[in-house]
Amino acid sequence: MSIRSNVFVPAIVLVAQICVAQTAGTSWEEKFRAIPSAEKQREYMKRLTARPHHLGSAYNKENADWMVSLFKSWGLDARLESFDVLFPSPKERMVELVAPKRFTAKLQEPPVAKDPTSNQHDEQLPTYNAYSADGDVTATLVYVNYGIPADYEQLERMGISVKGCIVLARYGASWRGIKPKLAAEKGAIGCIIYSDPREDGYYQGEVFPDGAYRNRDGVQRGSVMDMPLYPGDPLTPGIGATKEAQRLPMDQVQTFTKIPVLPISYGDAQPLLEALTGPVAPGSWRGALPLTYHIGPGPAKVRLKVKSNWDIKTIYNVLVTIRGSEFPDEWIIRGNHRDAWVNGAQDPISGMVAVMEELRALSELMKQGWRPKRTVIYAGWDGEEEGLLGSTEWVEAHADELKQKAVLYINTDSNSRGYLGMSGSHTLEKFINGVAKEIIDPVKNISTWKRSQLQRIGTGSSEERQEARTRSDLRISALGSGSDYTAFIDHLGIASLNIGFGGESGGGIYHSIYDDFYWYTTFGDHDFAYGRALAQTGGTTVLRMADADLLPFDFMNFAETVRKYSEELKRLLKTAQEEVRERNRQIAEGVFSATADPRMPLIPPSVEEVAPHLNFAPLDNAIDLLTRSADRYDKAIRNFKQGELSSSVLKGVNAKLIQSERKLTHPDGLPGRPWFKHLIYAPGFYTGYGVKTIPGVREAIEQEKWEEAEREIVRVSKVLVGKSDLIQEAAAMLEGPEK
Amino acid sequence: MSIRSNVFVPAIVLVAQICVAQTAGTSWEEKFRAIPSAEKQREYMKRLTARPHHLGSAYNKENADWMVSLFKSWGLDARLESFDVLFPSPKERMVELVAPKRFTAKLQEPPVAKDPTSNQHDEQLPTYNAYSADGDVTATLVYVNYGIPADYEQLERMGISVKGCIVLARYGASWRGIKPKLAAEKGAIGCIIYSDPREDGYYQGEVFPDGAYRNRDGVQRGSVMDMPLYPGDPLTPGIGATKEAQRLPMDQVQTFTKIPVLPISYGDAQPLLEALTGPVAPGSWRGALPLTYHIGPGPAKVRLKVKSNWDIKTIYNVLVTIRGSEFPDEWIIRGNHRDAWVNGAQDPISGMVAVMEELRALSELMKQGWRPKRTVIYAGWDGEEEGLLGSTEWVEAHADELKQKAVLYINTDSNSRGYLGMSGSHTLEKFINGVAKEIIDPVKNISTWKRSQLQRIGTGSSEERQEARTRSDLRISALGSGSDYTAFIDHLGIASLNIGFGGESGGGIYHSIYDDFYWYTTFGDHDFAYGRALAQTGGTTVLRMADADLLPFDFMNFAETVRKYSEELKRLLKTAQEEVRERNRQIAEGVFSATADPRMPLIPPSVEEVAPHLNFAPLDNAIDLLTRSADRYDKAIRNFKQGELSSSVLKGVNAKLIQSERKLTHPDGLPGRPWFKHLIYAPGFYTGYGVKTIPGVREAIEQEKWEEAEREIVRVSKVLVGKSDLIQEAAAMLEGPEK
Repeated sequence: MSIRSNVFVPAIVLVAQICVAQTAGTSWEEKFRAIPSAEKQREYMKRLTARPHHLGSAYNKENADWMVSLFKSWGLDARLESFDVLFPSPKERMVELVAPKRFTAKLQEPPVAKDPTSNQHDEQLPTYNAYSADGDVTATLVYVNYGIPADYEQLERMGISVKGCIVLARYGASWRGIKPKLAAEKGAIGCIIYSDPREDGYYQGEVFPDGAYRNRDGVQRGSVMDMPLYPGDPLTPGIGATKEAQRLPMDQVQTFTKIPVLPISYGDAQPLLEALTGPVAPGSWRGALPLTYHIGPGPAKVRLKVKSNWDIKTIYNVLVTIRGSEFPDEWIIRGNHRDAWVNGAQDPISGMVAVMEELRALSELMKQGWRPKRTVIYAGWDGEEEGLLGSTEWVEAHADELKQKAVLYINTDSNSRGYLGMSGSHTLEKFINGVAKEIIDPVKNISTWKRSQLQRIGTGSSEERQEARTRSDLRISALGSGSDYTAFIDHLGIASLNIGFGGESGGGIYHSIYDDFYWYTTFGDHDFAYGRALAQTGGTTVLRMADADLLPFDFMNFAETVRKYSEELKRLLKTAQEEVRERNRQIAEGVFSATADPRMPLIPPSVEEVAPHLNFAPLDNAIDLLTRSADRYDKAIRNFKQGELSSSVLKGVNAKLIQSERKLTHPDGLPGRPWFKHLIYAPGFYTGYGVKTIPGVREAIEQEKWEEAEREIVRVSKVLVGKSDLIQEAAAMLEGPEK
Repeated sequence: MSIRSNVFVPAIVLVAQICVAQTAGTSWEEKFRAIPSAEKQREYMKRLTARPHHLGSAYNKENADWMVSLFKSWGLDARLESFDVLFPSPKERMVELVAPKRFTAKLQEPPVAKDPTSNQHDEQLPTYNAYSADGDVTATLVYVNYGIPADYEQLERMGISVKGCIVLARYGASWRGIKPKLAAEKGAIGCIIYSDPREDGYYQGEVFPDGAYRNRDGVQRGSVMDMPLYPGDPLTPGIGATKEAQRLPMDQVQTFTKIPVLPISYGDAQPLLEALTGPVAPGSWRGALPLTYHIGPGPAKVRLKVKSNWDIKTIYNVLVTIRGSEFPDEWIIRGNHRDAWVNGAQDPISGMVAVMEELRALSELMKQGWRPKRTVIYAGWDGEEEGLLGSTEWVEAHADELKQKAVLYINTDSNSRGYLGMSGSHTLEKFINGVAKEIIDPVKNISTWKRSQLQRIGTGSSEERQEARTRSDLRISALGSGSDYTAFIDHLGIASLNIGFGGESGGGIYHSIYDDFYWYTTFGDHDFAYGRALAQTGGTTVLRMADADLLPFDFMNFAETVRKYSEELKRLLKTAQEEVRERNRQIAEGVFSATADPRMPLIPPSVEEVAPHLNFAPLDNAIDLLTRSADRYDKAIRNFKQGELSSSVLKGVNAKLIQSERKLTHPDGLPGRPWFKHLIYAPGFYTGYGVKTIPGVREAIEQEKWEEAEREIVRVSKVLVGKSDLIQEAAAMLEGPEK
């Protein structure tokens, strides 16, 4: 008997049937979604944020133990898994203006009377940037705006070099670690990063404790480890930082900054900025302090001193395993980190408590008789803030098993009010859209999917509006970095998703002592209504994936998305060509000399060679093949009928699907950063968190490495062909023997 | 004998010949351009700005007398012509925060040690807005951003009414008089306007006296007379304010504000803004003060008191006439105002001294034997600042003669460093482009035309770049209002130009006591290099027009420009239709309710009727006719040969050309504002200075008055047909009897 149906059934109905099939009965899902509680999330948060709980702190371990015993009390198999990682903590910190007058930065966030945990000074990690090089430097100060590549191009036009200087950069427009990285590449010997009130201070809204935004002493701590090279413990790249792991000597570590760096508040930054003269900063460089922003260099001269305790500390991942009843070797992993910079209510506990409620709800289902078909693993990662330590070490330690068994990793990192954010592997775009349609927005009483669709219609360009109205799925973003999915997707090629609500609660307490229970319950998702919605979303995602007969991967959206990226690459190249051609023409016409203001001298640009044309044909061919394969697979599942395939065939197809994201990796990884194996998604080498899709080609074009771009086109094309082959094989299995 | 040449001569050569013909020998022009001196402009400025010289002040009259005697010393026929105008000056002024705490605004600009004229307190006109209604009001304060129509739409969305309130608006984005006008229309009972440091204070650059920008006590004075209704003396609309003129009673004057209004500094504004709560102002509403901008209403409560001395004062226009040797009844008029708010070095003396050097240079040419063919009149207008009083009263007083005789009015109002700004009647676009090609930029040593072209290439969009590279003339802007050309072009339909350099010297001393000799010679065109270039430009314009055999009007550029405006109108209507259609659709979809942040309630918009289609056919037909006529005239001048036409024919053609701009006026004027007779150019009713082209149609569409829009299309079409007829007649005369 053929598995093909000769009866005409509209495709949409078939897909709906498959969904039902895949969810193994809507009733478990519905039961599940009724369970998560807002009040319990509030209780968990109160407990977890009661004291500072950064990596290595006493309360961090207490929290871990408490979580394990709580999960055990729900009848779950919970445990700690520890690693030993390099953790620098502040020993000496100093920022001092030494000329033209003296000023010593406070580097201290004061307690606030309204806020009961803000006075736990002895347990708070001081304000600093983890993995900064030690150093004590005194030099002329230069303001470099955000300190991103475009800013240095502007400085070059103005004839200003940062060589031998200390740069002052404001937070924003990039991941912070890029600022000292680029500054060092440009010859700077120190880097100070401050929070301008324009980004998250009074310019945005009332400051804490009167409002949600950063006050004049608030400081953004944060890691500056060179994570775009590799995240995780700097001493054990590629392997788990177990006790016995072989460690790099300190002087061979590549991911420390090359120069000392410290973060400061705008209260501390203001005297530094006031002491700068030289050209007035361009309009887009100006913040919200009441002064004229100048670039310098100098006359401000600054002393910057950073010294850390370079300790090995133990981190504790909290892990819960619910063994699969049918496919125990197919793993669905769900996680959120549990460590914070200080008390960390918003980041990360708001996400952690939702994940905990998912887990409690699953334990309730189990009491009612439910067992997942696949193994479900829940994780509370430690040491995320310093460099994704807990998740990365765990992934590296279990790499072989994960490569075999991991179906999906679902990450959350913090939660807030507003819209459901969805990003991840595009083979899961259709799947996660389906989940979003099930979750009701707690304020608007429409599905979170509908709400997001209407937001895109309301705020999008006319093209985005059109797409939001007509495309059956909302586009999800690709994953860059900045949270614990990184090792899963980028290092091992495990299909991943990142979910969480946001968009309606601003604030400026990120990585400060004021990110705590008082702040969150005053200015955040104060009633945990969206915390509840997040638990419903995450749990539905887990349930649906854990119990599906056929894993709900889809390749049509993926193929379309890769084609979109490839068109972007062509446009990127074309734009680069046109810009250089136009600039060369303008140089010849005399535009730059005619328009240079004699009082604001700009160095005219030089004539550059126009970028060559690149051979995109291999990529175009691979994408055509991918599209045909996706189409064949799509037809195959549309014709697939529940119960007509043997479970061994299904298991075989699922095994293919589990490996499908792995096909996008290459053992050599990306050029210059072999830890990053995924050839379609990666954090940008000069953006840090921001994603670069088809990164090998894209960054080669951006950095004008034309031969590398050509080579990368070929490499990417090959992995896409490999993926297409796998899709064809899966389709063939679904089509059955007649085909 | 035919005037047509049968010998093929490239058109460009012919045009060049005409130019030569029209300038009556380049030698006079060249001689002229060698004369203007920078040093003399510096001397004139030092004298004219030595003391405050506003309307009615002692030094204003002293300056007038000094100018007349100086011009007489050059052998010129100089005189004063006076009018008696209504001039309100401050009697009582108060801005006081009365709740939640008390603060009294200083309303006072302090002297600055470095600046020798800033301490002339007794002669300085206090900070105020002339023609504000008297009043003493106490009410809740609301921040309304710039106080323009879009801002009130935003307030409406937020559910905030200004009814019964005092509004606080920042300077910028509109002419200041629009702010109290709109506020009153919306029900406010008082208006305070302040200079935010973002616009022209420390956000832009160092503040005075360390830099060119507005310090915390600097205030922008200025008129708030409803000039878009009619400028000039409020008591004598349409007629010259001579001693015996019949005056309106005060209570029938339409151009006073309906509510009291005062300008304040940002030092005075800061406590008011700090006392506002309510919603945080949208991003684009935020200035550069170190606070969170809130809208209110309240709890800030403010008392605003304004009382003026409503005096009749005498104003003195300085006039010089150089009688034309061949066509004494064809007048070329050139002017700049000479009155200021206080010492006024930049505004207006920097322009006045250049115009004076033109005059001295012409007097030198006369000593060498030159006489203009046409009569040349130079003017130094009084009372411009209060409402274009001097120029408007002069134009109204001499309207009949001007309508007959005026060929062109060339205005300047201040000068600075940088690029030659050119705006005016598009029949003169080609002509003024020709002048700009003759003037050498004093810094770059290329023509001012070339420099402007390269700037457009360097900073324009790709369309603008393309046009700048290929169009033979740089586009000039249309004239709105804000200076003394207004009565000439808008009331009488005299072709006008406005010229001046700018773009490289910023500053924030506009209408403050710090706009003085010290500021200008430190931060402005300190060496008067561009003052010299301006004298060369203005004088070349005058000479070339005064001595042309055939007046160099061109209708091709005009026709093309009007077509461009007409396309803009169609796009405006289409965009309005599409916006309403899209908004209605989004309302139906539920976008607004789904995306409203519960903590920032917005009132959803209501369904509106989509704008109807309008009949643009009359306008299209008129523009087609205009284009054909322009083309015929253009062919006629290309074939025209110097010396082949009798001087009486030339005089006849010139008489037509002189009347050609008049054809664009209509005796009834614009809807609701009959003083404005020109149907192609006018200041916007809700922009004040900003031009609205084809204003009857454009503003009817903007204000959704569809029947009026249809009527105005017909009226505009008729004047264009009338103009086309005139152009045909002129062309026929040039073509000669055979045609």
